[in-house]
Amino acid sequence: MAKQQQSAVQPTREEDFPEWYQQVVRAADLAENSETRGCMVIKPWGYGIWENIQQQLDTRLKETGHQNAYFPLLIPLSYLEKEAEHAEGFATECAVVTHHRLEVEKDEEGKSRMVPTGKLAEPYVIRPTSETIIGAAFSRWVESYRDLPLLINQWANVMRWEMRPRLFLRTAEFLWQEGHTAHETKEEALKETRTIHMLYAEFLREHLAIPVIAGEKTEAERFPGADMTLTVEAMVQDKKAIQAGTSHYLGTNFSEAEDISFAGRDGTKQFAHTTSWGVSTRLIGTLIMAHSDDDGLILPPRVAPSQIIIIPVTPKEATRDAVVDACQALAKVLRLEVLFGNQPVRVHVDNRDIGGGVKKWEWVKKGAPIRIEIGPRDLESNKVCLQRRDRAPNEKEFIPKEDFIRNTSEILQEIHNNLLTKATELRDENITECTDMETFDTHWATDQPGWLMTPWSGSREQEEEISKKHKITIRCLPLDQQEKSPTACILTGETTSCRAIWGRSY
Amino acid sequence: MAKQQQSAVQPTREEDFPEWYQQVVRAADLAENSETRGCMVIKPWGYGIWENIQQQLDTRLKETGHQNAYFPLLIPLSYLEKEAEHAEGFATECAVVTHHRLEVEKDEEGKSRMVPTGKLAEPYVIRPTSETIIGAAFSRWVESYRDLPLLINQWANVMRWEMRPRLFLRTAEFLWQEGHTAHETKEEALKETRTIHMLYAEFLREHLAIPVIAGEKTEAERFPGADMTLTVEAMVQDKKAIQAGTSHYLGTNFSEAEDISFAGRDGTKQFAHTTSWGVSTRLIGTLIMAHSDDDGLILPPRVAPSQIIIIPVTPKEATRDAVVDACQALAKVLRLEVLFGNQPVRVHVDNRDIGGGVKKWEWVKKGAPIRIEIGPRDLESNKVCLQRRDRAPNEKEFIPKEDFIRNTSEILQEIHNNLLTKATELRDENITECTDMETFDTHWATDQPGWLMTPWSGSREQEEEISKKHKITIRCLPLDQQEKSPTACILTGETTSCRAIWGRSY
Repeated sequence: MAKQQQSAVQPTREEDFPEWYQQVVRAADLAENSETRGCMVIKPWGYGIWENIQQQLDTRLKETGHQNAYFPLLIPLSYLEKEAEHAEGFATECAVVTHHRLEVEKDEEGKSRMVPTGKLAEPYVIRPTSETIIGAAFSRWVESYRDLPLLINQWANVMRWEMRPRLFLRTAEFLWQEGHTAHETKEEALKETRTIHMLYAEFLREHLAIPVIAGEKTEAERFPGADMTLTVEAMVQDKKAIQAGTSHYLGTNFSEAEDISFAGRDGTKQFAHTTSWGVSTRLIGTLIMAHSDDDGLILPPRVAPSQIIIIPVTPKEATRDAVVDACQALAKVLRLEVLFGNQPVRVHVDNRDIGGGVKKWEWVKKGAPIRIEIGPRDLESNKVCLQRRDRAPNEKEFIPKEDFIRNTSEILQEIHNNLLTKATELRDENITECTDMETFDTHWATDQPGWLMTPWSGSREQEEEISKKHKITIRCLPLDQQEKSPTACILTGETTSCRAIWGRSY
Repeated sequence: MAKQQQSAVQPTREEDFPEWYQQVVRAADLAENSETRGCMVIKPWGYGIWENIQQQLDTRLKETGHQNAYFPLLIPLSYLEKEAEHAEGFATECAVVTHHRLEVEKDEEGKSRMVPTGKLAEPYVIRPTSETIIGAAFSRWVESYRDLPLLINQWANVMRWEMRPRLFLRTAEFLWQEGHTAHETKEEALKETRTIHMLYAEFLREHLAIPVIAGEKTEAERFPGADMTLTVEAMVQDKKAIQAGTSHYLGTNFSEAEDISFAGRDGTKQFAHTTSWGVSTRLIGTLIMAHSDDDGLILPPRVAPSQIIIIPVTPKEATRDAVVDACQALAKVLRLEVLFGNQPVRVHVDNRDIGGGVKKWEWVKKGAPIRIEIGPRDLESNKVCLQRRDRAPNEKEFIPKEDFIRNTSEILQEIHNNLLTKATELRDENITECTDMETFDTHWATDQPGWLMTPWSGSREQEEEISKKHKITIRCLPLDQQEKSPTACILTGETTSCRAIWGRSY
């Protein structure tokens, strides 16, 4: 009992979910705040998750014909001004570069200080997103319909001056990928927007074990400058929504503003139809809130920096070397022989000279999917002690080493499936269909209210009024619910076949 | 002849080396300038080279025990001020963020403009390098000697406001890796500095086919704030030097300024010995200048985005499908069966509907190591037409397909070796030992002078005087030349066993 108290994360999810989240991040050593306002330091275990997300998603994006490129960090102010709606959408959160050098100056007390000099004729903003600067490049690259489509992706840092930052979920600087494509026709651009939308939904399900609701944003919630925004929305354990990825059809709004024009098949000048889409380090916050428990982080196996931790148990000096050798040998075999999701399995032997209990709990809190202990007796019996992060921390299973090697991939897949099932159950139990306004209004007064799905034909103004009243938003109009039998809109009473999902969000 | 003129890059290296470089970059579609001053757009073929460098070097860094992490883009001014020498070294090239929002304002003519508002109490600089902000994190992370060593690497963008930017070689924003480590003792830190120095030298040789001179910088050329800077210097075809990578021993300069202190084995407070080291997208500029010819880019096979281009030759519609199928089938076999440097070989089938000559020359100019043509007759004979970028553009070899598959890896290695041999010959033919000042002085008046190696015991001031006079620098004190038999310093006449290499540089 004392051990439990010492080891588990405090507080529990039920006691204080936001504080529990902070403590999980800290206990797993994923990231920390820095003195740069709203910016985080991503520590090796946290960055390892991002590297896996990046590598696995990158493979999918390349398979679907996209190429990576890199565009400038700084955007001339005049670029941002070109698309008014877009500019206004980001204006309040732009970091602005106004000077290009520093000079040493002495203050009244004779102390040296650095002061900005070299004022720029035109200030730059640090990219909050890159539609404008990539659009300017596309404008140079496209002359004829033969130059289309352009299918470009960028892995980069971006900056949005957030007033209430929260590690991973909302930080001033974050890492992401942003796809930008240009097409000859509206149909092709729409197809691209949807392809990526589905790719994101599948990536979250298959790689992060997160089931999402895939849908369209209403006009009020669209990306500034977009004609259509598709979103994947995840429900986390306090039943709030997290917008985990978005895919935008931008029409010809940006191409007209930036002259991404081309000579069409009939020789006339036409404007390209463009799209943009992205996911970010926010995915890490999402997976933490979706899966972790009161003992700490639980990592979906595909993105865990180490999937298997092998811990030598060495009570006596005499058998120490033999045990450590056996651990290293097992690690070697696993790395060579076991594939999980087309990749070699990632194994770490924790050979540090610290107490076994402390060590074990460290890996529990770090969310490693599988822990394997090997002690002197296991050497004799040729068994290993298997512990899984999707089971109770003290649950152990002694299995023949050969069986473990043969079944490693299956066990990892099973852990993935268990996380996905649990998250799917949570989601499905907490989306309720609602057709009358009274039930709707009272619902949001409860603690951690789930999502409501309602028939909806209201206007933007009506949506915004309801949103403000209950501190909720329409998360999306779920794609698989849009052809339902017509019924009365919950607000206007008009007959509609459209369904909206409402909820609180991060 | 007309074809040649149309296809090759203009001007030649001999006519105008700097302009030739720009044209190679353009003809290979690697990168272009943007409207953000001094910042480049890295296009897919150029970014593909960087992705390979990044992935291959990252593997080496992880094998040597380093972990990746990520630190904020913006550095508080006060951090930079902590280490005076460091701060002064970068002050003149810092981009400064002074505001965090924009507001729309109407000018006299009623036109909307965005103006910076939300002035920051303390400005930030965009990282020109991250010693200070990573040092602040290390200070939080280290308490005891047990927390050491810290072996951290970051892949990131950095910004230095360059007055004379040049694509890849010197740009305001560039991409790099920066390693930062902290150690208990001076010996360990020096060992780390040297380990990385040798790793860089090997990486350039084995992955970029560039032979370097590995040596130490003199005090005048050291990194601002370092006690020792080790460098790898590459000679390119106009005999200028490019500093391709550096590894710094920082002593306790940064740890004292930022309090990276720890309780030592004897319980006393001690300061960590730190190192930092990096290579950047400059490596791309270096490999272009080292290997390319008057026909355009020549890529070292290990980092070529595509190592083999397969071009279907389809003179008749009737055999078209069969030829294309054969090309795709060959690509598939190569991808599955051929490893080059532990990685599956990278193959691209260029099936575009454009003229064969245009297509071929495009890949010549893009520097693809191997081109394979397959036409209807080759199907019958079961041969392929092999063309290599390290041979004349019109040199062809018809070889049995099976032989090609079996020998692919060997051919790629041969191309690598040929590039390395050629670059090594150039380097060795253009480093001359020089022991008298008269010869030294006249040497620099020649066109594209090579490097001179001299006995050297001069002071910093004497070095700077010579450097200024001839627009040269001491590139390094080459490590393998420091135990030479004592002889008279070229300037002072004092007996010295130290040798210095002088040259012009980018």
